[in-house]
Amino acid sequence: MTVSSVYGEHIRLSIFGQSHSRAIGMSLDGIPAGLPVDEAALRAFLARRAPGSTDLGTPRKEADEPVFLSGLVDGVTCGAPIAAIIENTNIRPKDYSELQDKPRPGHADFTAQMKYGGHQDVRGGGHFSGRLTAPMCIAGGICLQLLQHAGIQISAHILSVGTVKDRSFDPMGETEETLQALAKKPLAVLDPAAGEAMRAEILAVKAEGDSVGGVIECTVQGLPAGLGDPMFFGLENRIAQAVFAIPAVKGLEFGAGFACAERRGSENNDAFCMENGMVRTKTNHHGGILGGISTGMPLVFRAAFKPTPSIGREQNTISLSGECDVKLTVHGRHDPCIVPRAVPCVEAAAALAVYDAYLQYKAER
Amino acid sequence: MTVSSVYGEHIRLSIFGQSHSRAIGMSLDGIPAGLPVDEAALRAFLARRAPGSTDLGTPRKEADEPVFLSGLVDGVTCGAPIAAIIENTNIRPKDYSELQDKPRPGHADFTAQMKYGGHQDVRGGGHFSGRLTAPMCIAGGICLQLLQHAGIQISAHILSVGTVKDRSFDPMGETEETLQALAKKPLAVLDPAAGEAMRAEILAVKAEGDSVGGVIECTVQGLPAGLGDPMFFGLENRIAQAVFAIPAVKGLEFGAGFACAERRGSENNDAFCMENGMVRTKTNHHGGILGGISTGMPLVFRAAFKPTPSIGREQNTISLSGECDVKLTVHGRHDPCIVPRAVPCVEAAAALAVYDAYLQYKAER
Amino acid sequence: MTVSSVYGEHIRLSIFGQSHSRAIGMSLDGIPAGLPVDEAALRAFLARRAPGSTDLGTPRKEADEPVFLSGLVDGVTCGAPIAAIIENTNIRPKDYSELQDKPRPGHADFTAQMKYGGHQDVRGGGHFSGRLTAPMCIAGGICLQLLQHAGIQISAHILSVGTVKDRSFDPMGETEETLQALAKKPLAVLDPAAGEAMRAEILAVKAEGDSVGGVIECTVQGLPAGLGDPMFFGLENRIAQAVFAIPAVKGLEFGAGFACAERRGSENNDAFCMENGMVRTKTNHHGGILGGISTGMPLVFRAAFKPTPSIGREQNTISLSGECDVKLTVHGRHDPCIVPRAVPCVEAAAALAVYDAYLQYKAER
Amino acid sequence: MTVSSVYGEHIRLSIFGQSHSRAIGMSLDGIPAGLPVDEAALRAFLARRAPGSTDLGTPRKEADEPVFLSGLVDGVTCGAPIAAIIENTNIRPKDYSELQDKPRPGHADFTAQMKYGGHQDVRGGGHFSGRLTAPMCIAGGICLQLLQHAGIQISAHILSVGTVKDRSFDPMGETEETLQALAKKPLAVLDPAAGEAMRAEILAVKAEGDSVGGVIECTVQGLPAGLGDPMFFGLENRIAQAVFAIPAVKGLEFGAGFACAERRGSENNDAFCMENGMVRTKTNHHGGILGGISTGMPLVFRAAFKPTPSIGREQNTISLSGECDVKLTVHGRHDPCIVPRAVPCVEAAAALAVYDAYLQYKAER
Repeated sequence: MTVSSVYGEHIRLSIFGQSHSRAIGMSLDGIPAGLPVDEAALRAFLARRAPGSTDLGTPRKEADEPVFLSGLVDGVTCGAPIAAIIENTNIRPKDYSELQDKPRPGHADFTAQMKYGGHQDVRGGGHFSGRLTAPMCIAGGICLQLLQHAGIQISAHILSVGTVKDRSFDPMGETEETLQALAKKPLAVLDPAAGEAMRAEILAVKAEGDSVGGVIECTVQGLPAGLGDPMFFGLENRIAQAVFAIPAVKGLEFGAGFACAERRGSENNDAFCMENGMVRTKTNHHGGILGGISTGMPLVFRAAFKPTPSIGREQNTISLSGECDVKLTVHGRHDPCIVPRAVPCVEAAAALAVYDAYLQYKAER
Repeated sequence: MTVSSVYGEHIRLSIFGQSHSRAIGMSLDGIPAGLPVDEAALRAFLARRAPGSTDLGTPRKEADEPVFLSGLVDGVTCGAPIAAIIENTNIRPKDYSELQDKPRPGHADFTAQMKYGGHQDVRGGGHFSGRLTAPMCIAGGICLQLLQHAGIQISAHILSVGTVKDRSFDPMGETEETLQALAKKPLAVLDPAAGEAMRAEILAVKAEGDSVGGVIECTVQGLPAGLGDPMFFGLENRIAQAVFAIPAVKGLEFGAGFACAERRGSENNDAFCMENGMVRTKTNHHGGILGGISTGMPLVFRAAFKPTPSIGREQNTISLSGECDVKLTVHGRHDPCIVPRAVPCVEAAAALAVYDAYLQYKAER
Repeated sequence: MTVSSVYGEHIRLSIFGQSHSRAIGMSLDGIPAGLPVDEAALRAFLARRAPGSTDLGTPRKEADEPVFLSGLVDGVTCGAPIAAIIENTNIRPKDYSELQDKPRPGHADFTAQMKYGGHQDVRGGGHFSGRLTAPMCIAGGICLQLLQHAGIQISAHILSVGTVKDRSFDPMGETEETLQALAKKPLAVLDPAAGEAMRAEILAVKAEGDSVGGVIECTVQGLPAGLGDPMFFGLENRIAQAVFAIPAVKGLEFGAGFACAERRGSENNDAFCMENGMVRTKTNHHGGILGGISTGMPLVFRAAFKPTPSIGREQNTISLSGECDVKLTVHGRHDPCIVPRAVPCVEAAAALAVYDAYLQYKAER
Repeated sequence: MTVSSVYGEHIRLSIFGQSHSRAIGMSLDGIPAGLPVDEAALRAFLARRAPGSTDLGTPRKEADEPVFLSGLVDGVTCGAPIAAIIENTNIRPKDYSELQDKPRPGHADFTAQMKYGGHQDVRGGGHFSGRLTAPMCIAGGICLQLLQHAGIQISAHILSVGTVKDRSFDPMGETEETLQALAKKPLAVLDPAAGEAMRAEILAVKAEGDSVGGVIECTVQGLPAGLGDPMFFGLENRIAQAVFAIPAVKGLEFGAGFACAERRGSENNDAFCMENGMVRTKTNHHGGILGGISTGMPLVFRAAFKPTPSIGREQNTISLSGECDVKLTVHGRHDPCIVPRAVPCVEAAAALAVYDAYLQYKAER
């Protein structure tokens, strides 16, 4: 009895599917009529998330080709819900036969079993699989396009893989070229040397049959001031509800985030100033949000990803049928580091949250 | 056009009021009938948040006495919404006369103006005031009691003020005595020496007319496995939506949080084991949540608070009527560090999220 | 576990209180900032619903004076939720002492007991009392005013009391004077003679210790075309959800309603035509709604009210403690016909539904 | 910007598709895990709604074969959202080329144009088409089965076609055989002679190129007492929100409905009595609902359907490009009376509403 795969207030996204069901997909209600959706651009966006594109990720190959069922007429929204599905073609259920009884450490196998009384779909993680971020990317990718038409750009990069760091976004803003270039790189980093080091790190942990975590940083530029709401529907609340839907996210911070907990107010407060008749701040420790509402400065947040729990090494677990000390080796095809493929997922989550708030913003004008 | 002060799926909390309106309050729908609510215990809980209790906080004195209007018959829930208000008695609107035009750095003054076109209630921050956490604490305090009856204990402590740190909660669990003792201390810390150092730090920044941030750590013990939902209504999503409603929160992490981004999977995975016939994990880096659902291990999260933006020192701002370079000194009564008073607010936010998920958990059984 | 006293998508109304709790009230979130609310006009609106105004109703006298707690600054909405309460002053709990055990026929006593396991507030019907329509009228009365500013007029009249009928609204529209005059009459009827006959009928059933039902007809004029949504949020769906919240409503029909079930399509279809460059229809059997969306013709609906179940005569019931054949005489103060006082409640319900749809309509432009 | 195709609180149904889009479908979240769904029985249920089954309806033939995409593992719910689609195979877009400019009287063509600014999908009524009741029947059909497992039976029959009447349901209840037999008849009537007369009436209007309306009566038997909620989520409110989503419904009444508006309280009140230790009422004018909550007596309601607006005869309309006096003949394939095919739709709408309330009822126990 869980209405948990539904998101949004002005938009309403419903995600469905399991890792090895016939298809996964989404229905997105609430998008205004008359807006163009570029399917080719959307496919390019989805390709950034799709498995099998480089030697860094899982060898599971899925074209992740979305089929649009409704809501578009000649590439333009018609006001009816937009629905799209992706068929699951590359299904290898035998890899997962043990899992009903022996929960994988760090996975939702055990908790799903506790929740659904053993009726959950265990194949590939079922509805808890990272594969379900694909329909989230369809919906988020549409919102990204609609925000772009309104001059709002959302971009993310890999801030770190393990202890290897990229440079941070400039909190005062990046150029459009810098942001657009990120989407075209195999590893979305600002500093090419960091990318090389991350690549080496991922290949190293892969060789060891291990995995590694990382941090993704995301920015939203071009936001007008006044977007978001007080209390439970501030931009932070909305973004958090979307971002924590991506499996493996364990932390989230906005602007200076945890660092500002160590500061004095006199250091951390961003003084207001005027630039070309616009109110701006001289620094941007607040990450573009005050009181849950956008200030017009770049919105910046960071999401921490734990290392992929599926590792090739033998691990200790139990069996739900009663064995206390069980050795488990997870077979199947897994990413040694989920972070590179999660970059568009973070952008998609941000786009869902920001577009939902944007519709409210527009309604107030 | 913002339905933003409403929270919850199985419960529905509506918060109303402004810092200087006639009253602030809340209506809490969805609480089952027949449950006792201990008003005295609730008052004690609210007293931990109330201003004026120590020399560390704002001298604004508000008894914060809740008046229950409905939903209780002889101290027992009757199924109808529980409503309670707190009258605003200590109103000094003159402190705030400048603010309509000169937004305070770090506050919601500017963004509220952008959102509401100048019609927002500027007195004391209006609906954005930290004072609105009082009705959140009424609702959360009720949920805390109902969870306690179910054997679930929620407790928070000050993990840090500026660079002064308390010890962390033991992720494997604290004793009930340790947790209960926290609620009775003027500064909720585990290590008394840390409390002394924090007290010194707060008095120091106060003396300088400055402020300082901090981190609050919260734990939920006694949770059964199986509570929470996949995707957008996992425990992380629900807690995040509630915790980011507390002003000044800029970061949130669960379990090992940002630290696990630097780890290998082989380090970070928590092996399952059996203890007295119960499935447990040998470590608790996952913070009691896998796939958005409780594992039965202690739930642990940390929230980062920025330093109070209201400081006594002169700051730079602009005026919305067009002046570019304005000096502002914030008068009024302010906390040099909001963290001590925010401890029960974090507990309340967690209680709202967990109790909402708990009702769903119970419904599934 | 019932989140049932909350209404609306763009607005969110939370109603709280029981017939004999300390106060009843409401919080209304989502109203745009900067709109004037005329409290005197609102009091006049509430007075139409209040008990004790004529010799036709209950002798229970309640001033029903709303106290505004928040959301308004100098009579103008500030964007924060608008909250108001009415204190329950005239409480006579002794009238109801029997009811916990002996459910009144036609009342919610029995079903509330089944739902809440005996913990419901039985005094005066608790949360099920018609008294809870007072906070609905506060919220609806505010929406009525805001709609009036947009040129949209909502008015209702008593179409029938028992078998005594008023004339129907002209489906092609009434003059503004006609509609405004209704609000000032003790019995809201179009034909004064019908009013006299209804008055006689009500006094007759009162003398007999009996009660009588009736029908209220409501119209919304000045609606632009294009307001409302397909499927579950059409104007009919929204109005129905609000109107069935008024106790005693057992039927609802739009336009020609049940009568059109007997017709041919060639009779019932309303041909489109042009009037002063506006698309109109030559007849209005559709009652101003096609596909859930307003056509710009007057919206017309009728709600059927059952006779007040509280009657002075002895009735048969049982006792929940096990007696099979119990005689019950309902004491207390009751309306022989609830219909006259329900007229503003129907207007309020319509206003909530239409204003919610109106905010969406405006957002689309 | 319309989140209008989403229904339910404990369940969340999202319907998508247009009459001539690639597919129509639905996602149904919130169904508990571990419940069997009989796909063959569901197909039989959908066949009752499908076009082309008799000589009374539209000659458009659609197999309406649902394809289940997710949420079921070996025919048992797994806790993930259940998604299913129906491909639109029999698309004849040319029939509708005129409609963008010349709205059909009685249809949503004009209002959709006003709402969506001309971007709506005009082919076959788009998202407003009666065809969208097919995914509603998939979701409702699943709920019907789950309610049957709990001993709750929902059945509807044609109470009237034009002026031809069937007998009414016995408000005190029908036998299970009587109800089950209805589902197997080509025309769902209790009295075979009424069925013959209705058939003659429909063929007569069809021969005239006209259409006719009717009334469907629905009953829910086996409901326990205590199901439903006060105010906005009573059983009437919930059923109304679902039933008015079926195109052509213009009226709805519960129990004695509009008739009770003419009655005295002493006639209309249903006295409580005891039967085999169960509280019952001696009559059932209340239609099984008091205060929005089930009494345990049969729930009975009636929905009025207007005649199909698509008729073969020439009608008057206008053109949105500016012509004032346009003659329109609707080509294409249409039902002279939608009522026979709408019977399962009414059952489906009732099942969605009752099952949603049932999950809440169960959660309270």
